[in-house]
Amino acid sequence: MQQIRTLFRISALLFLITWPMVVAEDFLFQGLNIPGNTSNQLGSAVTAVNVNQLPGLNTLGVSLARLDFAPYGLNPPHTHPRATEAFLLLEGELYVGFVTSNPANANQRNKLFTKYLKAGDVFVFPQGPIHFQINVGKINAVAFAGFGSQNPGVITIANAVFGSDPKINPDVLAKAFQVEKNIIDYLQAQFWPNSN
Amino acid sequence: MQQIRTLFRISALLFLITWPMVVAEDFLFQGLNIPGNTSNQLGSAVTAVNVNQLPGLNTLGVSLARLDFAPYGLNPPHTHPRATEAFLLLEGELYVGFVTSNPANANQRNKLFTKYLKAGDVFVFPQGPIHFQINVGKINAVAFAGFGSQNPGVITIANAVFGSDPKINPDVLAKAFQVEKNIIDYLQAQFWPNSN
Amino acid sequence: MQQIRTLFRISALLFLITWPMVVAEDFLFQGLNIPGNTSNQLGSAVTAVNVNQLPGLNTLGVSLARLDFAPYGLNPPHTHPRATEAFLLLEGELYVGFVTSNPANANQRNKLFTKYLKAGDVFVFPQGPIHFQINVGKINAVAFAGFGSQNPGVITIANAVFGSDPKINPDVLAKAFQVEKNIIDYLQAQFWPNSN
Amino acid sequence: MQQIRTLFRISALLFLITWPMVVAEDFLFQGLNIPGNTSNQLGSAVTAVNVNQLPGLNTLGVSLARLDFAPYGLNPPHTHPRATEAFLLLEGELYVGFVTSNPANANQRNKLFTKYLKAGDVFVFPQGPIHFQINVGKINAVAFAGFGSQNPGVITIANAVFGSDPKINPDVLAKAFQVEKNIIDYLQAQFWPNSN
Amino acid sequence: MQQIRTLFRISALLFLITWPMVVAEDFLFQGLNIPGNTSNQLGSAVTAVNVNQLPGLNTLGVSLARLDFAPYGLNPPHTHPRATEAFLLLEGELYVGFVTSNPANANQRNKLFTKYLKAGDVFVFPQGPIHFQINVGKINAVAFAGFGSQNPGVITIANAVFGSDPKINPDVLAKAFQVEKNIIDYLQAQFWPNSN
Amino acid sequence: MQQIRTLFRISALLFLITWPMVVAEDFLFQGLNIPGNTSNQLGSAVTAVNVNQLPGLNTLGVSLARLDFAPYGLNPPHTHPRATEAFLLLEGELYVGFVTSNPANANQRNKLFTKYLKAGDVFVFPQGPIHFQINVGKINAVAFAGFGSQNPGVITIANAVFGSDPKINPDVLAKAFQVEKNIIDYLQAQFWPNSN
Repeated sequence: MQQIRTLFRISALLFLITWPMVVAEDFLFQGLNIPGNTSNQLGSAVTAVNVNQLPGLNTLGVSLARLDFAPYGLNPPHTHPRATEAFLLLEGELYVGFVTSNPANANQRNKLFTKYLKAGDVFVFPQGPIHFQINVGKINAVAFAGFGSQNPGVITIANAVFGSDPKINPDVLAKAFQVEKNIIDYLQAQFWPNSN
Repeated sequence: MQQIRTLFRISALLFLITWPMVVAEDFLFQGLNIPGNTSNQLGSAVTAVNVNQLPGLNTLGVSLARLDFAPYGLNPPHTHPRATEAFLLLEGELYVGFVTSNPANANQRNKLFTKYLKAGDVFVFPQGPIHFQINVGKINAVAFAGFGSQNPGVITIANAVFGSDPKINPDVLAKAFQVEKNIIDYLQAQFWPNSN
Repeated sequence: MQQIRTLFRISALLFLITWPMVVAEDFLFQGLNIPGNTSNQLGSAVTAVNVNQLPGLNTLGVSLARLDFAPYGLNPPHTHPRATEAFLLLEGELYVGFVTSNPANANQRNKLFTKYLKAGDVFVFPQGPIHFQINVGKINAVAFAGFGSQNPGVITIANAVFGSDPKINPDVLAKAFQVEKNIIDYLQAQFWPNSN
Repeated sequence: MQQIRTLFRISALLFLITWPMVVAEDFLFQGLNIPGNTSNQLGSAVTAVNVNQLPGLNTLGVSLARLDFAPYGLNPPHTHPRATEAFLLLEGELYVGFVTSNPANANQRNKLFTKYLKAGDVFVFPQGPIHFQINVGKINAVAFAGFGSQNPGVITIANAVFGSDPKINPDVLAKAFQVEKNIIDYLQAQFWPNSN
Repeated sequence: MQQIRTLFRISALLFLITWPMVVAEDFLFQGLNIPGNTSNQLGSAVTAVNVNQLPGLNTLGVSLARLDFAPYGLNPPHTHPRATEAFLLLEGELYVGFVTSNPANANQRNKLFTKYLKAGDVFVFPQGPIHFQINVGKINAVAFAGFGSQNPGVITIANAVFGSDPKINPDVLAKAFQVEKNIIDYLQAQFWPNSN
Repeated sequence: MQQIRTLFRISALLFLITWPMVVAEDFLFQGLNIPGNTSNQLGSAVTAVNVNQLPGLNTLGVSLARLDFAPYGLNPPHTHPRATEAFLLLEGELYVGFVTSNPANANQRNKLFTKYLKAGDVFVFPQGPIHFQINVGKINAVAFAGFGSQNPGVITIANAVFGSDPKINPDVLAKAFQVEKNIIDYLQAQFWPNSN
C-alpha cells in the first residue's frame, strides 16, 4: 500500500500540479553489491532493480539489473518485451548471442549474432530478439545491464513454453517443435526455475 | 529503389515541407482475398501486409495480416516484438493462447491464458508474450489480424531457438532446456519453415 | 464498475508491480461475424471493437472495426483524430477516397486520392485526412479495419458540423460554406444518425 | 535545397553524432508582428510559423501561428490532425467553439462547447475536434496560437469537402449531407480560399 | 479537490470509456492580458498557463506563458526539462541566447547562440539548453511562449544552484565553480526570487 | 563515414524493409573496464558509451556511462536534457544530490534531495533536475550509469554558464547571479574542462 502511494507520488511529481511529499529514499535502492545466488540448475542469477524494487523509477524510462554467473552458468534464451538491454561485463568471460526476428528476405531470417566478451565489454541486445549469456571462463562472471524501460519484462523461453501454468497442450508443442509427444511430456515434467 | 523513393515520399508527406508526388497506388495493396498456402508441415500460412508490402503505411503505426489454417494447422508459438495483435477469426474454430511474462510475484509467473474461438470472435495478444493458434475444427480457418505497428516483427520460437543461422551452441540449449545434447542435435537438424 | 476495474487491472498489468487477477475473458470480444444493421438513411453500419468494447486493449495501441454497406451504402466523410486506418475489403466493391490536409504549397492543397476497391484490397487512410467509402457494387460489401490506437475516435463531418448539440451558430456556417442561411437551417433541421 | 540541408543539420544536432554547422539564424523567424491580410471572403488570415517556415523547430514538437480577424471575420470550421492548439486572444472579441467526437454514449455525441473570448483569454482546442473562431467585436481581433507539433497540419472542412482537387463525387456528398445534388454542385462551384 | 476531479475528467475524456461532465470552462484561462509584476530585482516576470492553471491542457502536450520585461529586465539563465520553447517577442527589444550541450566533438561544446530580437521575431529555445532573455530597449518588452508540453517545468540555474532548500554543500559548489568558499557563502546568502 | 553507414544500417534494421549487412561488431564496445583519467582539477572522469561510441544503440533508447572519482573528486552540477539516470555505485563512497525544478507551490521550489551512497547503492536522477556526485571516501570511487536514451546529452552548469564560446555577456550573468561584474570576469577567465 505504501508502495502504491509512493508510485502515485512519483507520477504526480512529473505530471500533475504540486510536488507531493516525495523523499530522497524514494529514489534509493540498496544491495546491488551482493552477488545473486547461483546455486541453481542454471548456475546464474539476475537481480532486477526496476520500478517494482525502486518506485522512484516510475515514468522515467530506465532500470538496471545485476547478473551473476557461476562457471558454466547460463542465462538461458529469453526476450525483453519492452526494452533494449545495454549489457556491461564487469568480471569474467561470457559467450553471448541474439537471434534476429523474421524480416522480409528469406535469406536473412533468424541470423545468430555472437561475441565472446571479456571484462569491460558492452554488448547491445535489441528489444525483442531472443538472447542468452553463458560463462565460458573459470571464475564467476558479474555483469550489469541498463534497460530503456522502468519495467522491461522478461520472457524466459523454456519456462514460458514448457513451464507455463497450466501447461500448453502437448499436441501444440509436439507439432511446433517437430518432436514426439513423449519428449514434450518429459520437458513439461521438469522443474523450471525462474532465473530472471 | 522505387520502393525506397516511395518510403521517402511518404515520410516527407508527414514530417517535412512539401507534399511530394504521392499517388493513390502508394496506399493500396491487393490480393488479401487469396488464401495462403497451408501445404506445409505446420498446416498454416501467414500473409503479412506491413510496410514492406504497402509503403503507404510508413510512419503510420498500423498493419494487417491474413492467417490461414488447414484442419489441425498450427501457427506455432511466437512473439511480436513491436506490436499488440488484435486477432479476428472469420471462419472455422481455433484454440488460442498466450503465456504471461515474469512479473514480480512468483505465483503469477508464466500463466497460460487460452480460449476456444469461433467465427466472429476477437482476441487480443498483447505485445511481447508468446502465443499460438491451432485449428480445432474440421474445416479451414481464416483469420485477420491488426497490429499497432507498421512493422510488428515476428519471432517464431522454434525457428529462432533451433533453426538459427548459424546454430546456437548445443551446450547452451541442452542446459537451457534440460535435455540431453542428442535431443538438441535432433532438433537442430530439422527443417524449420518460416510460417510467419 | 466492473469495466473500470478491468481497465485498471489491464494497465496495472503492464506498468505496475504485480499481475492482478486478469482473466482470459478480458481479452475476448464476441460477435463480429454479425452484420451491422444497414437499414438507415446512409445504408451503412460500423461496429467498433475498441477499448470501450474490449477492455483488454487498454494501453496496447490497436483496435478493430467491422463495416457493412448495403448497395449504394455510404460511410460518409469523417476523420479519426487518433489513428491511421488499414482497411480491408472482404466482399463487394467500394469506391473510397481521402483528401489531403493543407500543406505549404498552394498547388498541393486538398488533393483527393481515390480508388475502386474489390475483395482482397487493402487501403490506407492516414491519421487526420477526411475520408469516405461507398458501395458501388450490386451486393452488400463487408470490410474490416485495423487502427493504430485503442480508441481512434471518429468525427463524422456532417454530424459534427450540422448535427451538434447545441447547434453551431448558423451565421458561422453560412459564412464558412458560402451559402444562404436558409440552407444551413435546412441542414441543421435534418436527423443526423451516428453511422460510426 | 538549403532548407533541406538545414533540416538535416537540425535533426543531426539532436539525434546523431556531431554538432553540424547550425547557426543562430536557423532558430529565427521574423515578421509575426505584421497583420495578415484579411481582405478575403472570410475576413480572416492565419500566418503559420511551423517547421516549413522555421527549420529550427525540426524534431522539437512545438510551433506557433498568428491569427487576424476583421470585424465579422471567421476562421471557419477546421481540424488539426497532429496537435492541440492553445489559443490566446490578444485584442478584440471572439466567439469560439469546438464539437466533440463520437464517444461511446449516444447522448454525449457531437457536443458543442463555446465561449465568448475577450483580450487575455486562453482557450484550448484539443487535437482532432472541429473548431472555429469568429470576430464578434467591432474592431480587428488578433490572436496567437501554440501547437504541440512542429507541423500540426490543418484540414479546413469546407475546402476539403467541397474544394478538393479533383472534386469528390457529388453523389457521395449529396447522400452524406442529405441535400439535393444541385446544392452540392453549387457548393463545389464556389472559390474556396485557403484561410489556414 | 475540484481541480483533481477536473484533471481526471479530462484524461478520461481522451483515454477512457464515456465522456464525463466536462464543461467549456475546463478549457478556459483568463487574464493573460495583465502584465506581470516586474518590480523585482530581475525586472522580469513570467506568467505561466500550463496544466496547473488550465486543467483542460491535461494530456494534450502544449502550454503557454507570458513574459514581461522592464527596461534592463532579465529572464535569467534557465532550462525547461520537458519542452522546447517557441518564443514570440510582441513589443520591445530583447537580446536572447542559448548554450548548446556537450556533444562528442571537443571543439563544438558549449557554443553560445545569440540574437537581438525586435517585435514580431520568433526564436526557438530547444529542450534542455540553458537560455536567457534580457531587455535591451528603453521600453517594457512583452513576449509570449508556446511549449510542447502541458507542464514544461523550469530550472532557474542560480536559484537551483545557490538557492536550494536546504543549501548544497558549499565545498561542492566551490570546487564546481572554482571560487573561494566565501564567494559561495555570499551567493547562498542572497535572496533568490522565483522569476519563472 | 563508415559510422554513418553503420547508423543507417541499424535504423534500417528496425524500421525499413530488408535486413542490411549488420555485423555483431556493430553491437559491441570495448574498454569500459579501464578507469577514466581523474588527474584534472575536478578529480573525476566520465566515460560515455552512447550512440556516438556504439552505433548499435541507434533508435534503441538506452546507453551507459562509467564514472571515476579520485578522493574528493567531484562530478559537478549538471543536467541531462534527454534522459533519466539510474546510477549504481560499485566502489567507494559518494555524497549525491539533485535539486527539484520550480513547481507551482512556492514552498516546494528547488528542494535539495541528497544521500550518502555506499557500494551497491542505486540512485535515480530524474530527467532534467541539476545533480552532482562527490567522493567523500578515502579511496577511488567507481560507478556505472544507465540512461533511458541513446544520447542523453549533458549540460555542465559551470561550463555552460561561464565557459561558453563565445562568452555570455557579463552584464547578464552579474544580474542573474547578483554579484559584481568582476566576479563574473574572474569566473569567465577560468579554464573549464569538460568532465562529462
